[in-house]
Amino acid sequence: MTDIETILARVDANLPSSLETLFELVRIPSISTDPAYQEPCRKAAEFLAHYLAGFGFDASVRDTTGHPMVVAHHPGHSPDCPHVLFYGHYDVQPVDPLALWSHDPFEPAIREAENGEKIITGRGTSDDKGQLLTFTEAVRALKETKGGLPVRITILFEGEEESGSPSLRPFLEANRQELTADFAMVCDTGMWDAQTPAICASLRGLVGEEITIKAASRDLHSGGYGGVAANPLHVLSDIMAGLHDETGAVTLPGFYDGVDETPSDIKAVWDELEKSQSSFLSDIGLSTPSGEKGRSILELLWARPTAEINGMSGGYTGKGFKTVIAAEAMAKVSFRLVGRQDPQKIRDSFRSFVTSKLPVDCSVEFQAEGASPAIQLAYDSPLLAKAKAALSQEWPKPAIVVGGGGSIPIVGDFQTMLGMESLLVGFSLDDDCVHSPNEKYNLTSFHKGIRSWVRILMAVSDENVPGST
Amino acid sequence: MTDIETILARVDANLPSSLETLFELVRIPSISTDPAYQEPCRKAAEFLAHYLAGFGFDASVRDTTGHPMVVAHHPGHSPDCPHVLFYGHYDVQPVDPLALWSHDPFEPAIREAENGEKIITGRGTSDDKGQLLTFTEAVRALKETKGGLPVRITILFEGEEESGSPSLRPFLEANRQELTADFAMVCDTGMWDAQTPAICASLRGLVGEEITIKAASRDLHSGGYGGVAANPLHVLSDIMAGLHDETGAVTLPGFYDGVDETPSDIKAVWDELEKSQSSFLSDIGLSTPSGEKGRSILELLWARPTAEINGMSGGYTGKGFKTVIAAEAMAKVSFRLVGRQDPQKIRDSFRSFVTSKLPVDCSVEFQAEGASPAIQLAYDSPLLAKAKAALSQEWPKPAIVVGGGGSIPIVGDFQTMLGMESLLVGFSLDDDCVHSPNEKYNLTSFHKGIRSWVRILMAVSDENVPGST
Repeated sequence: MTDIETILARVDANLPSSLETLFELVRIPSISTDPAYQEPCRKAAEFLAHYLAGFGFDASVRDTTGHPMVVAHHPGHSPDCPHVLFYGHYDVQPVDPLALWSHDPFEPAIREAENGEKIITGRGTSDDKGQLLTFTEAVRALKETKGGLPVRITILFEGEEESGSPSLRPFLEANRQELTADFAMVCDTGMWDAQTPAICASLRGLVGEEITIKAASRDLHSGGYGGVAANPLHVLSDIMAGLHDETGAVTLPGFYDGVDETPSDIKAVWDELEKSQSSFLSDIGLSTPSGEKGRSILELLWARPTAEINGMSGGYTGKGFKTVIAAEAMAKVSFRLVGRQDPQKIRDSFRSFVTSKLPVDCSVEFQAEGASPAIQLAYDSPLLAKAKAALSQEWPKPAIVVGGGGSIPIVGDFQTMLGMESLLVGFSLDDDCVHSPNEKYNLTSFHKGIRSWVRILMAVSDENVPGST
Repeated sequence: MTDIETILARVDANLPSSLETLFELVRIPSISTDPAYQEPCRKAAEFLAHYLAGFGFDASVRDTTGHPMVVAHHPGHSPDCPHVLFYGHYDVQPVDPLALWSHDPFEPAIREAENGEKIITGRGTSDDKGQLLTFTEAVRALKETKGGLPVRITILFEGEEESGSPSLRPFLEANRQELTADFAMVCDTGMWDAQTPAICASLRGLVGEEITIKAASRDLHSGGYGGVAANPLHVLSDIMAGLHDETGAVTLPGFYDGVDETPSDIKAVWDELEKSQSSFLSDIGLSTPSGEKGRSILELLWARPTAEINGMSGGYTGKGFKTVIAAEAMAKVSFRLVGRQDPQKIRDSFRSFVTSKLPVDCSVEFQAEGASPAIQLAYDSPLLAKAKAALSQEWPKPAIVVGGGGSIPIVGDFQTMLGMESLLVGFSLDDDCVHSPNEKYNLTSFHKGIRSWVRILMAVSDENVPGST
């Protein structure tokens, strides 16, 4: 038996106790958003710290102004081996409406689904208690088999992910040195489907702007002034209409600086995936992708930047009619960013664009909203290649690289505050009912998830994987 | 002395009694909008009926569901002489805030203004009691001098003009035959300035449309769908931006059908007038007319049609930010019409335009709002020419033909319900403070206003002036 086969055999042998740990953790109703569950949250943190200490971690429960963090450290086999920060969260969503659950959400069990699949039922089995344990149980198997770890590991478990993570940034700020590793691993995402593991290599960034166009010093009657007085709603419509050209591309000068074409091998995989996504648009009553022409849905969502109007208002919008020329009109606009697009440059370009389009007598006020760059794990990064190969060995189908259309705050914070890239790998499935009644986690997700992390940790231990490229 | 000089001398001699009649009428606080003044409103109507009967009118107070109408008839010198309907209103605006009045609003007096001008002070002296009496006192002088009238006259005085005229249309409808004349005369408008009388020959019409653009079946998160799902706010902005071309002209097919160029002599007068209107835009914080390029402000307001967005909304418009792609977006659009533009054709053209611009997967709903054609007294109409000549004989400067940017409902109703054109002549001035504290009417407006109507009535009696052309 090879080294890795020995460890995987240990994972298999450990499964009953892995499940027992998961069950114990799920039984703790650590609902972070409800103050009535403050004690269970602390109990879950203490359970995890005790559990990690049980196989050699220097683990502690760390107070915050909200629910506590769990931080744990384990050295690697040598001082120069890679250092991994693993992130997960022990808090769960509320369980209302309880009547819709087939079983007690806090009494986990292995049951058989309608499709014959074995599933672990209960709140948090998938999001994120089951997922975080796939990582730690892999570490336990490694430790039990080899007596040490191939990588240095720092663990950060949060208890407020389901309630906006208010304590996270201050905690990262205050413990920057302790928490900074070579890269982060996060197990809070999903598989493409039950056969196909996925690595999320990109998340779009975001820049928001609220703009207000002003013209006359007061609202005017359109009988007395229509045709003569500048109408801010026309000016705003003109400017908004000018944000895109006829191909759907964004017209802001320099907008596509730092936007790379997706490698053709990745694109080819996405094109294949898209064939299985026929209901993506029909589910929301649409038939055809809008946006940049000539690009697939998945490319548009994962690898292309956007300009979107999120809100617009001005003049009279109530029932009936008022023949008013409004003194001002407002729009909220956001840009989803990819690659190396610079949020500040995008903001500046937008403001210059708007200002350049202003007719005489009109003025504009800008209000900056959030600005975060895109997250992009380089497609040629060794970390990605190793994780992909490792996952592909474990699952029936090869691992694929996907993206995310929105942002995951923790990943942005790791990048901007701690300078770390994140490897996002997870084993949840679309039908896991996370945040809903009857949450479940497939037994296969749990078992092969643990085995997957063993393979990934062994793979990345080969050499010190570089962080950013 | 010529015939007309005899009558004008009678007007001059009558002035003390004309003023006494005005004072008596102003002393009646006929505030139509306030239920506490129901009795004074009736009293004003009765006063007027009695007054008209005093010089030969068959006058009656006619009940409505609101304040009563006064209707009075006087035959002309022959059965085939022109028949004029004269309209005015005896109700007045409230007087709050009373503290801002220098004198009791219902105790009229002749006072000297700061510029040395003699003014008649009191609520309603200008709007519309003083103005309506300029007409009836002219008729009285004619009657007293000649023993008869050169035209047949029907008088309609309303008591709800300042509160939306709820009874007017039903009353016109119910008394169509009695009230239909060859044309109407209305004294409820103003002079261009204290030396220059004005005839309002055109009022813009109006078509309103509310449109709602719909795309996805629900609001979407812009992270998960941005760049792929159609955004109704973009579609709406594009459509709204497309309503005008770069010259400011409206792009709807057929929009300018029925829009005539203003005769060059009228335009030349307007260009002269505009030189005295330097503060029109600066008063509202603007410096440059928007709208169709190459046209003067007065032409844009009085003789050119418009398309205006009066309101627009969609998506998230509250405080902060929400990265939403709205399922729908709404705009309220109105068109000011001139000349012979057909409201229904404009509505149809707009709807076709919007529908033709709809991208795939988007739908639109239309909600029709008011539709009224423009009012246009033909610039070459004999009625206009006679009135202009008559006024020019009375005042220091020649009469000018002006337009109105908005609509005056009664004039539209006379046109659409009774098929009559209206001659709008009035003697109020911009500083009359109508609807405000310290309302006044210049003694010159009152005195020369009466003389003006004598001249106009004599002029139009020459022959049967045609109505519509």
